[in-house]
Amino acid sequence: MRPSSRAPDEMRAIAIETGFTKHAEGSCLIGFGDTKVLCTASVERNVPPWMRGKGEGWVTGEYSMLPRATHTRGSREAARGKQSGRTQEIQRLIGRSLRAVVDLRKLGERQITLDCDVIQADGGTRTAAISGAWVALRIAVDGLIRAGEIKEDPITAQVAAISCGIYKGTPVLDLDYDEDSSADADANFVLIDGGQIAEVQATAEGATYDEEGLLRLLRLARMGCNDIFAAQRDAVK
Amino acid sequence: MRPSSRAPDEMRAIAIETGFTKHAEGSCLIGFGDTKVLCTASVERNVPPWMRGKGEGWVTGEYSMLPRATHTRGSREAARGKQSGRTQEIQRLIGRSLRAVVDLRKLGERQITLDCDVIQADGGTRTAAISGAWVALRIAVDGLIRAGEIKEDPITAQVAAISCGIYKGTPVLDLDYDEDSSADADANFVLIDGGQIAEVQATAEGATYDEEGLLRLLRLARMGCNDIFAAQRDAVK
Amino acid sequence: MRPSSRAPDEMRAIAIETGFTKHAEGSCLIGFGDTKVLCTASVERNVPPWMRGKGEGWVTGEYSMLPRATHTRGSREAARGKQSGRTQEIQRLIGRSLRAVVDLRKLGERQITLDCDVIQADGGTRTAAISGAWVALRIAVDGLIRAGEIKEDPITAQVAAISCGIYKGTPVLDLDYDEDSSADADANFVLIDGGQIAEVQATAEGATYDEEGLLRLLRLARMGCNDIFAAQRDAVK
Amino acid sequence: MRPSSRAPDEMRAIAIETGFTKHAEGSCLIGFGDTKVLCTASVERNVPPWMRGKGEGWVTGEYSMLPRATHTRGSREAARGKQSGRTQEIQRLIGRSLRAVVDLRKLGERQITLDCDVIQADGGTRTAAISGAWVALRIAVDGLIRAGEIKEDPITAQVAAISCGIYKGTPVLDLDYDEDSSADADANFVLIDGGQIAEVQATAEGATYDEEGLLRLLRLARMGCNDIFAAQRDAVK
Amino acid sequence: MRPSSRAPDEMRAIAIETGFTKHAEGSCLIGFGDTKVLCTASVERNVPPWMRGKGEGWVTGEYSMLPRATHTRGSREAARGKQSGRTQEIQRLIGRSLRAVVDLRKLGERQITLDCDVIQADGGTRTAAISGAWVALRIAVDGLIRAGEIKEDPITAQVAAISCGIYKGTPVLDLDYDEDSSADADANFVLIDGGQIAEVQATAEGATYDEEGLLRLLRLARMGCNDIFAAQRDAVK
Amino acid sequence: MRPSSRAPDEMRAIAIETGFTKHAEGSCLIGFGDTKVLCTASVERNVPPWMRGKGEGWVTGEYSMLPRATHTRGSREAARGKQSGRTQEIQRLIGRSLRAVVDLRKLGERQITLDCDVIQADGGTRTAAISGAWVALRIAVDGLIRAGEIKEDPITAQVAAISCGIYKGTPVLDLDYDEDSSADADANFVLIDGGQIAEVQATAEGATYDEEGLLRLLRLARMGCNDIFAAQRDAVK
Repeated sequence: MRPSSRAPDEMRAIAIETGFTKHAEGSCLIGFGDTKVLCTASVERNVPPWMRGKGEGWVTGEYSMLPRATHTRGSREAARGKQSGRTQEIQRLIGRSLRAVVDLRKLGERQITLDCDVIQADGGTRTAAISGAWVALRIAVDGLIRAGEIKEDPITAQVAAISCGIYKGTPVLDLDYDEDSSADADANFVLIDGGQIAEVQATAEGATYDEEGLLRLLRLARMGCNDIFAAQRDAVK
Repeated sequence: MRPSSRAPDEMRAIAIETGFTKHAEGSCLIGFGDTKVLCTASVERNVPPWMRGKGEGWVTGEYSMLPRATHTRGSREAARGKQSGRTQEIQRLIGRSLRAVVDLRKLGERQITLDCDVIQADGGTRTAAISGAWVALRIAVDGLIRAGEIKEDPITAQVAAISCGIYKGTPVLDLDYDEDSSADADANFVLIDGGQIAEVQATAEGATYDEEGLLRLLRLARMGCNDIFAAQRDAVK
Repeated sequence: MRPSSRAPDEMRAIAIETGFTKHAEGSCLIGFGDTKVLCTASVERNVPPWMRGKGEGWVTGEYSMLPRATHTRGSREAARGKQSGRTQEIQRLIGRSLRAVVDLRKLGERQITLDCDVIQADGGTRTAAISGAWVALRIAVDGLIRAGEIKEDPITAQVAAISCGIYKGTPVLDLDYDEDSSADADANFVLIDGGQIAEVQATAEGATYDEEGLLRLLRLARMGCNDIFAAQRDAVK
Repeated sequence: MRPSSRAPDEMRAIAIETGFTKHAEGSCLIGFGDTKVLCTASVERNVPPWMRGKGEGWVTGEYSMLPRATHTRGSREAARGKQSGRTQEIQRLIGRSLRAVVDLRKLGERQITLDCDVIQADGGTRTAAISGAWVALRIAVDGLIRAGEIKEDPITAQVAAISCGIYKGTPVLDLDYDEDSSADADANFVLIDGGQIAEVQATAEGATYDEEGLLRLLRLARMGCNDIFAAQRDAVK
Repeated sequence: MRPSSRAPDEMRAIAIETGFTKHAEGSCLIGFGDTKVLCTASVERNVPPWMRGKGEGWVTGEYSMLPRATHTRGSREAARGKQSGRTQEIQRLIGRSLRAVVDLRKLGERQITLDCDVIQADGGTRTAAISGAWVALRIAVDGLIRAGEIKEDPITAQVAAISCGIYKGTPVLDLDYDEDSSADADANFVLIDGGQIAEVQATAEGATYDEEGLLRLLRLARMGCNDIFAAQRDAVK
Repeated sequence: MRPSSRAPDEMRAIAIETGFTKHAEGSCLIGFGDTKVLCTASVERNVPPWMRGKGEGWVTGEYSMLPRATHTRGSREAARGKQSGRTQEIQRLIGRSLRAVVDLRKLGERQITLDCDVIQADGGTRTAAISGAWVALRIAVDGLIRAGEIKEDPITAQVAAISCGIYKGTPVLDLDYDEDSSADADANFVLIDGGQIAEVQATAEGATYDEEGLLRLLRLARMGCNDIFAAQRDAVK
């Protein structure tokens, strides 16, 4: 029934390759099937102006698609001179999601920027970005701890994200591009290992949905995130 | 318990003044307590380039805060030379929400722009904007029907939005600014009269939440939106 | 003779509603007939960089039209990414006009920003803005004096503005949109109560004018401003 | 009494060197004392989109200061990425002033752009620009007539501009930089040969002024413009 | 002597992995040691406005560095709202270099954009970009030929680029970051297989150089490019 | 053979008029035939942020063309809101070229900005700009030395630049616009008096070139620069 021939509750293959670039304090290339996102964590000593002198840190995200990550070439945001509303929405979500599992006081007055650059897109780029950003962050923070710069681990849990949607009337897990572009509803869930929720964004596209539909999507998301949590743990072992 | 002394499931007073400006095809000033948003609907004959020649219309939203709508003056986006990520996120949400109740084919090749300008802010500006935009849209479309420009009513339902949150552990309805700034979770619901959901955006701020919490917020939102649906019907009678 | 059927020296109704928004230190909604401008005065402790440490204050103006303040919708300057030349010209004029009646030393090292946002436009928006901005300023400064933050009143006089023009050969007072768009000459006068002039901007549109024409416009402006001065005094009583 | 030791009604030397650059259809370097502005007129076959198909032409102005035209270096507007409010105000004035003496129907569907670039500044750059732009325009239009592209002369009169001001209580003609920066009032007059007025912009700087003051400035401006009219005629002979 | 311990005429390892992304008509990840650049070729049917209707094609380049491609994180050009002078200089060079080996008439009215995104930087990113762009272009054009869209091969030769420099008095081949940042002269050569030169850019950094120095750098560049030509041929076999 | 009828090794007339504007610390109008560039040197006490506190100075260049310096009017970069890639490339080259002959420590913590504004263009504007900028710099530095602000002369040599190209198979010196637009190769050389090279930029346009061609262009450039060095010395005597 799905264009991908997957079962409704079947994720695409998750692949996480750590250390993909050598300069960043933490990095990985995460793949959800053909969607591939390079996530790097950069540690800097200076926090944004409005946070200075509080002894707390900050975690933020940036997101971009390479122009030819997609089926047809998109124009480069740097050339257009501004980031699209979609880009800004996604990078705000990445930052919020990661901050949900970081104790900023334990981080000390430093900023960690999570750059998520989409190398190849096939649906679900923002959820892959969040899931990979956690890995890059974990590696960077482990480095800070090993170097003695941080005493207590500021990361309080794992965070992962997955998209689900209602496709031809059936709730399905981990939409790829073909499914995403014709789904009736499209939801992104950001979940914490242990069961808590950090963010739900569930949007009616072709048709509105009901409470039952929302709950079924949430349950699929839990299944998917459990797989991602396992892959994250494997990757940073 | 709430700074506003309201009961957990108590909305602020809803006030809708239609015809607030004379040039727009539809307009209202909507108030959720001290939050006041001017919503206008402008009908234009040309649709965006990528929609031309399809015989369909388009509905879009724009959002802005007057610089001194808030406690302290914010800089003017036109002076800074760009719209913030928050502004863009909100105006994309307004457009999506209203399109969820419009049959674009019945609208014909015309665009309706819903401008939502916040005159005074006290929390919940985006949900007031969506709720008021529906009123402006309804008035504008009624005008098109009366003028014989449109044969069948393209509006399929009412849409309204409300924010809910978990404040000191308790789910509460219709957050004002004081509550919003210290809530643990903050959720915006866009609902359709009849019970369907157009959009859920539920974000953990200070603490993550669980499925039970999400459902309790959704139920509060239903109560609130029912009040707004009634006020909308009153306003356009 | 005039599209509005007014006598050549007849103003439109002046309406000033103070306290229109609750956060600003001073505010009013001023109406010259169907032209309606929301004016707010915001007091801030920091002055522009080039004024710091001089012990003097600064008064500045900003101006904007809501996109659908006009007959047809205009694009939003924040979305276009820059303010038009017209907008900048008007906000420079607002700032200059108000500074003409403020002793900046007595204001102390604080900045007052006068935001003038046009809610509905029917000609004469810049002159309504200046006239309303004085009311907002007066209220804000009265608050500073009452709070003991300022010892001596820095406001030295009232300032008001009105447009006049030569319409079908006849000098007329207070042009509305229909008159403005077909006048031969269009002049804005910024006057001080007591008779002095702060600014004259008189532009030939369809036909040039002579010294006699200029003087007749100035005399009409005096009449109009006297009415505005009275309305301002009423409003801040 | 004046820093320049000139009599109150004494202009600086006017110098107009035509043909200063070879590519433009008309050009001159105009000097009012040490103020030097290069004015070029460029004729193009296409008019702005909103004028197309009307069979009428358009005349517009652009203005800029070289970064080191002034006492201290100013930053380059192209590097800052936007034109200042002052620049936009001046270029709007240049366009309006020249259009006041052009019959756009006789010009036919072509645009003439008057670029006024300040090579050296010592007060009065905008008035020198307008006065020189007329010369460049006259030369360009003469070329069109000689080439048989235009049948009837679209230029209806000469236009010139001069600044006057109240300096230490005395009305003076043609302010230089030292006088301008400490004048109580500063007025720019755009006059037509024969006595009509195209534009008056009279601004109180340190002190407000009265009707009598305005008239005395206007009379000085007439004297100054008569000298400029003569120099323009000499230049294009 | 060199920080990298390489002999003066020793290149870093060249690695070219074709088909690195699946959507682009041609792509490769090219490595010069630790410098890694993703090059994609996108074929589009529309050429820039100034080329339309000539029956000729266009080849252009774009270049960007991921923010953390470098030792310390750089800000994202899309977030700053403009491309740096360096970026623009490099993308102009990429376009020129590739056009030097393409017969635009044989390409027909289509545009090929070569996007060069630096994944990891260690000196020589622009020369790796040019060398990899040729591979991506070759693959894309082979696809057009196979599909019968192009009859005659528009690619006339191979093009490759390499940097050389004078490091502590000795001409060396293929500067890495450490060498580049302290070289006395830094030169980029774009060469054609067969021996012709497409571009030389040779810049004195710490000390100027002489004709003999320039020639010695050119000879090193020939050696390096011969290695790259071989690797390119291997990659597209 | 050349459109200009010059011999292959014949320069256009070089004209340098010093003191062209009165405010700059150094200035000249340099002409290479019909190409005329106004070069000013502005001395400021503050260096860029990344240079502060090192006791060293900085020399930088800016470049612009007046809109009608060229055959057809170009749009103004300040109006477009950004500088073109070409402009940025040229101003980077100007800065680098002048820094090649300045000992920044001897300059002390001050910045000298070389503004090069093209008044009239006929090919070779960047090379005229560099050659004239040296004259403006020399005059400004002489002023600093005379005023006792600088003890030792920070200028270590003369620098000049010239373009050469291969025109219809023949290497020619000092391309004018007609030659430049149809040359097969176009090279800019920045040379130091005494024979050293600061920069070579040699680009194939219609056809690639070989080592022999490069060397012949370099030898022509030496001849041309020797003439410019003499003219520079004359100008600053």
